[in-house]
Amino acid sequence: MYANRQWVLAQRPAGEPDLDCFELRETDTDAPTDGELLVETRYLSVDPYMRGRMSEQESYAEPWAVGEPLEGGIVGEVVETESDAYDIGDLVTGQGTWGEYSLLAAADVAPVDPSVAPPEAYLGILGMPGRTAYFGLLEVGDPAPGDTVVVSGAAGAVGSVVGQIAKLNGCHVVGFAGTDEKTRWLTEDLGFDAAINYKTTDDYQAALADAAPDGVDVYYDNVGGPITDAVFTQLNLDATVAVCGQIAHYNAESVPTGPRKLPQLIAPRATVQGLLVGDFATRFEVATEQLSEWVAAGKLTHRESIVEGLSNAPEAFLGLFAGDNIGKQVVQVAAE
Amino acid sequence: MYANRQWVLAQRPAGEPDLDCFELRETDTDAPTDGELLVETRYLSVDPYMRGRMSEQESYAEPWAVGEPLEGGIVGEVVETESDAYDIGDLVTGQGTWGEYSLLAAADVAPVDPSVAPPEAYLGILGMPGRTAYFGLLEVGDPAPGDTVVVSGAAGAVGSVVGQIAKLNGCHVVGFAGTDEKTRWLTEDLGFDAAINYKTTDDYQAALADAAPDGVDVYYDNVGGPITDAVFTQLNLDATVAVCGQIAHYNAESVPTGPRKLPQLIAPRATVQGLLVGDFATRFEVATEQLSEWVAAGKLTHRESIVEGLSNAPEAFLGLFAGDNIGKQVVQVAAE
Repeated sequence: MYANRQWVLAQRPAGEPDLDCFELRETDTDAPTDGELLVETRYLSVDPYMRGRMSEQESYAEPWAVGEPLEGGIVGEVVETESDAYDIGDLVTGQGTWGEYSLLAAADVAPVDPSVAPPEAYLGILGMPGRTAYFGLLEVGDPAPGDTVVVSGAAGAVGSVVGQIAKLNGCHVVGFAGTDEKTRWLTEDLGFDAAINYKTTDDYQAALADAAPDGVDVYYDNVGGPITDAVFTQLNLDATVAVCGQIAHYNAESVPTGPRKLPQLIAPRATVQGLLVGDFATRFEVATEQLSEWVAAGKLTHRESIVEGLSNAPEAFLGLFAGDNIGKQVVQVAAE
Repeated sequence: MYANRQWVLAQRPAGEPDLDCFELRETDTDAPTDGELLVETRYLSVDPYMRGRMSEQESYAEPWAVGEPLEGGIVGEVVETESDAYDIGDLVTGQGTWGEYSLLAAADVAPVDPSVAPPEAYLGILGMPGRTAYFGLLEVGDPAPGDTVVVSGAAGAVGSVVGQIAKLNGCHVVGFAGTDEKTRWLTEDLGFDAAINYKTTDDYQAALADAAPDGVDVYYDNVGGPITDAVFTQLNLDATVAVCGQIAHYNAESVPTGPRKLPQLIAPRATVQGLLVGDFATRFEVATEQLSEWVAAGKLTHRESIVEGLSNAPEAFLGLFAGDNIGKQVVQVAAE
């Protein structure tokens, strides 16, 4: 038995979640049995999709249960093992809890190689967000060299990788992000051709027409709302829209309204498709290998925003909706 | 020179078009020269997409010019020929004008075989609407046997064919239409499994849940608006939405608003695609042959709503937006 501290779902939010939704609880965690590992959390992941898990309504991710530990991606160190696959001291990543310790099946975790990238990158570019960017862009968006690719939430964990992969594929890449620091990062460090600060720009359509003078061939949407409204006015023939996330609407208390978009799809014969990374699970390793290779070769840049301390995990999560993060937001739980 | 009467575009509409947009003009039409036919119109086609041609804004169909004859599909009789391909008295179909006579290149018309179906059916099930239904359903919607297919504008020229082809493909078919006469036609004559009168039904979502208890796999949308809003709440995994038309919005003076739909696409990984029949032009004959075969074999039912007299063509067109037609709306210009 290990003394543990875990965040549990205290109550479900109505609209925007706040700290009252979370409760840090002291608990005991069993020692591992056959095939299991006890993993001490180094970093835990907070992701926008988790907002859906706070709600009662069944969606693609199972709702978190009230009073039960919050689940999510972690990177941690094996501190006790009942598996031949991992030794004490090994770094692994998998689905754990927002806590100090997680009991995980060795079969469900993957090794973390800190010689490729720092461990926290395995929650970002080398984790679920990186795979989401990889498959969502290449399989759903499917841009050709020379295409114009527009990304919303471009400085986030997924968007920042999407834009860079698009550049590696010879595309003209435009990102929307919410601060000048972010837009500078996109154009100066990540190689985006243009970036639009949607918080200081009045006319998104005009800004996009400037940044994407040949129109939009592929739109990778993480956000929704007025950015998406603008992009839909400039879709090229056979344009593709990959709907990865709609963070602008996750906290809406009723169905949000906006300009109707279906009439805009007919003339360009555009295709709009929702995507979930889980559909590509059989090829996750392909993506992670390719992304690791690009990272190791310096072809992809990554960045993590780190909040320190398990006690600050809810703030880190809530900050996603205020756009506090640049790149992947993680919570550092234990020091290295 | 032939004395002719033709409808011209008198002015562009702002919002809903009215009779002031149209002017019947007396004119002279040249005799045919090499490779041409002079065709006396029997029937002319009025179609919802023509609303787009009344506007100045460039779209997939070229805008009609103010003061110039209105163009559209016709069926007519060859009354003078300078082509070996057709004799005087032959019935042909092609793109002509809203007039008594059209001068057409023989290479641009197709023969009409009244032993297969009455000539006016070549503007409907055996014409552009039939081909739109055929390719839109089978290539864009792409239902599998057992799928639930929902059609809006189900009693229209396109929708009525879509639903019947879906039935031939072993689907469960639900249609939305605007009168009890239409819904009866769908279920009693066309074999739809269910039809919903959207003008007398309050709760579209509940009615659809009753009519399509297994959810929606393919939605063929001719209409948009609240019907579409309801269907999007009930999309199954990997659902497909073929956006063929959005007649509910064609007369809007500003961009219409409604519930945002992109968030609804993520969990089902649904695909929404705009379609234009012109993209399938190289295979038009395949469709028309198949549709002719089905019609001849009694596997497809068709119906035309006929307005008599060239002078009533604008009323027939405007009636499309009031849902006056059952099946294909045509204007009979000359008696047989």
